[in-house]
Amino acid sequence: MASTFRFITFLSDYGLEDEFVGVCRGVVKRFAPEVEILDIAHGIPPQDVAAGATVLAQAVRYMPAAVHLAIVDPGVGTPRRAVVIETGSGSPLVGPDNGVLSLAAEALGGATRAFAITNESLFLEAPSRTFHGRDIFAPVAARIALGMDLEEAGSAVPVDQLIRIEMPPAKVDDDHIHARVVQIDHFGNLQLNFGRSELEGIGVILGDETEVRVGGRSFRAPYSQAFSEVKKGGLILLEDSHRHLTIAVNMGNARSTLEARRGDPVIVARVQIAGN
Amino acid sequence: MASTFRFITFLSDYGLEDEFVGVCRGVVKRFAPEVEILDIAHGIPPQDVAAGATVLAQAVRYMPAAVHLAIVDPGVGTPRRAVVIETGSGSPLVGPDNGVLSLAAEALGGATRAFAITNESLFLEAPSRTFHGRDIFAPVAARIALGMDLEEAGSAVPVDQLIRIEMPPAKVDDDHIHARVVQIDHFGNLQLNFGRSELEGIGVILGDETEVRVGGRSFRAPYSQAFSEVKKGGLILLEDSHRHLTIAVNMGNARSTLEARRGDPVIVARVQIAGN
Amino acid sequence: MASTFRFITFLSDYGLEDEFVGVCRGVVKRFAPEVEILDIAHGIPPQDVAAGATVLAQAVRYMPAAVHLAIVDPGVGTPRRAVVIETGSGSPLVGPDNGVLSLAAEALGGATRAFAITNESLFLEAPSRTFHGRDIFAPVAARIALGMDLEEAGSAVPVDQLIRIEMPPAKVDDDHIHARVVQIDHFGNLQLNFGRSELEGIGVILGDETEVRVGGRSFRAPYSQAFSEVKKGGLILLEDSHRHLTIAVNMGNARSTLEARRGDPVIVARVQIAGN
Repeated sequence: MASTFRFITFLSDYGLEDEFVGVCRGVVKRFAPEVEILDIAHGIPPQDVAAGATVLAQAVRYMPAAVHLAIVDPGVGTPRRAVVIETGSGSPLVGPDNGVLSLAAEALGGATRAFAITNESLFLEAPSRTFHGRDIFAPVAARIALGMDLEEAGSAVPVDQLIRIEMPPAKVDDDHIHARVVQIDHFGNLQLNFGRSELEGIGVILGDETEVRVGGRSFRAPYSQAFSEVKKGGLILLEDSHRHLTIAVNMGNARSTLEARRGDPVIVARVQIAGN
Repeated sequence: MASTFRFITFLSDYGLEDEFVGVCRGVVKRFAPEVEILDIAHGIPPQDVAAGATVLAQAVRYMPAAVHLAIVDPGVGTPRRAVVIETGSGSPLVGPDNGVLSLAAEALGGATRAFAITNESLFLEAPSRTFHGRDIFAPVAARIALGMDLEEAGSAVPVDQLIRIEMPPAKVDDDHIHARVVQIDHFGNLQLNFGRSELEGIGVILGDETEVRVGGRSFRAPYSQAFSEVKKGGLILLEDSHRHLTIAVNMGNARSTLEARRGDPVIVARVQIAGN
Repeated sequence: MASTFRFITFLSDYGLEDEFVGVCRGVVKRFAPEVEILDIAHGIPPQDVAAGATVLAQAVRYMPAAVHLAIVDPGVGTPRRAVVIETGSGSPLVGPDNGVLSLAAEALGGATRAFAITNESLFLEAPSRTFHGRDIFAPVAARIALGMDLEEAGSAVPVDQLIRIEMPPAKVDDDHIHARVVQIDHFGNLQLNFGRSELEGIGVILGDETEVRVGGRSFRAPYSQAFSEVKKGGLILLEDSHRHLTIAVNMGNARSTLEARRGDPVIVARVQIAGN
């Protein structure tokens, strides 16, 4: 027997200005009025599959058991595959097979089975070519929450054929780390693709000064634990709530201070003290 | 007997930065804690009644049976009428009588009865002159969801006296169409006021190139089915999820590429091929 | 016995682009799946404790009985105190003790007891230094909604030691008022720190013209009751829905017209009529 789910979580790049998100909520409720929708975020930058994948993976580990619906779908209307993914955690993922689900699948114990969404009897009538959230994904997610077996969605897809997002790790090089900005949050904090162990690997410990090179400029930032350990407007390097190192400005915005964008290369180096 | 409703949908131009929407939700819940609020959208451009009417009409047909609460209300505090509209679908509309409800009423089977909201015993105490969402519309919507007869709201209004938004249709002229941008969505897609039949009427079929004139400039755009049928950054003309023709940029933003605004005139023309 | 609460209201400066708000919702639902979350607003300007305190106080008086969770927390990760505040209304407040809760406590009948949140058995495992909303505040709010005694949170704090936000009142000076912009809303309306009685104190009654000085410039604005009592684009002074005087532009945006910011000084003066 398939499980039923009390919750459907929902992430997209639809924004909240228009009716896109509201209409998907409405379609879910028409099929499954008792199911609760938990919005994760709808402000993923338009068509940015990697950003959606990152945010989703960081969120799902804190969510209750749920059907996780995630739509960042630049290929909508083309033959790109739509999928349902069963995970080790028991919480399935629903969305386009373009990588947006892949990091969350790993965070949820790995993909155990997957099915292409091809069963047209589950879709709204005369589905559009441009809004599969409303016409395909919302009705399918609702049915799964109500207990539909995942294989009802369509034919099985080998899990090793699912599209994955590759997030290349940072490269440690003697006294510095070649990293990238993997995410920029609402506060303008720049999340990097390494953790505390890499930083310790170049000999930096809590309280040390580091040099941060980004966009052809160089900055000093202490490796600290809380935003307010530097003065207002000061740059700081600290471990964020996902155990990534992050560049922040106390009471300010590192994105605008450093004119940084997602994907930018960043070098973090140990500051040589005379006599070391 | 009046119906009860499990859902109240909610659309406004209140934005989500401030407490406006949250306070209306709170007032509904004080009267009707069991009723669920389904947000359609709160990012309607401030005071833009026509935009609100368009978004609402496109959303309500996908919503479950509900009281539809919609507030875009530049005339708040003046003697403009507040109304409850009964529709053929059974789902009533609540909001100012300035046209914001009119397109949704048509989409829901037409207005069958209407009542001015004048029964002050339904309002919050000492209602303000500037925030009728909180003081009048939310309490009235909550009571209707709980089963209050619509005529309790106030005196009957002949439905042909309700204010309507006129959305003039595009004009087909031999080999070109004089149209307007009726809506711009989160992705910057420009929704036009005509459908596939008008395009076929000027001899354009799927795969044909068209010429799009907007803001004194001219662009080529193929008439296609999915965003990604053109290269990244390319302009495309396609049918959107509401069966309107729409101008889009694949992986981009047509609003900024074409510097277009809602209401702008657009000419879509068949491209003459030598020898035709 | 402690009360249980059907609702948790939620205000923050987390924005809705990222997963911050969604993750807090998820954590609440893991502990308390039946509790409903009522979002007040998440668009408080980043780190702006006074703005958060103002919006929260204006909202809570319209909310049902609830645990009020409010997080604007520039000092997260430092020894700043986290608190639960019991209020005269029976609805408790949860958040950082930096003043963000203080105006709401007054609006809810005053703080009657307070407890520092120090009971680590209530936190998520290995709480981060940067996201106490997820790791500390959401789990504590959920437990209180489920009926946990407030003293379970930690040691008692004398209520007169709670941090307060001071909102200095406007100063009436013969025929003019020295005021400040205390809040700017989604529509660009400028809320001032005085009410109708101060305006009457300088001899201004409904329909009178006033002079508004802000940012080194001077404007005329009639004291009126509804936005549309002046022509489109005209400046107006009116009582807002919280009984504060507010500067607005009919069908426009006073923030951009006057280039005003929160905290700016504003002088409102009676206009001398020849012969008066």
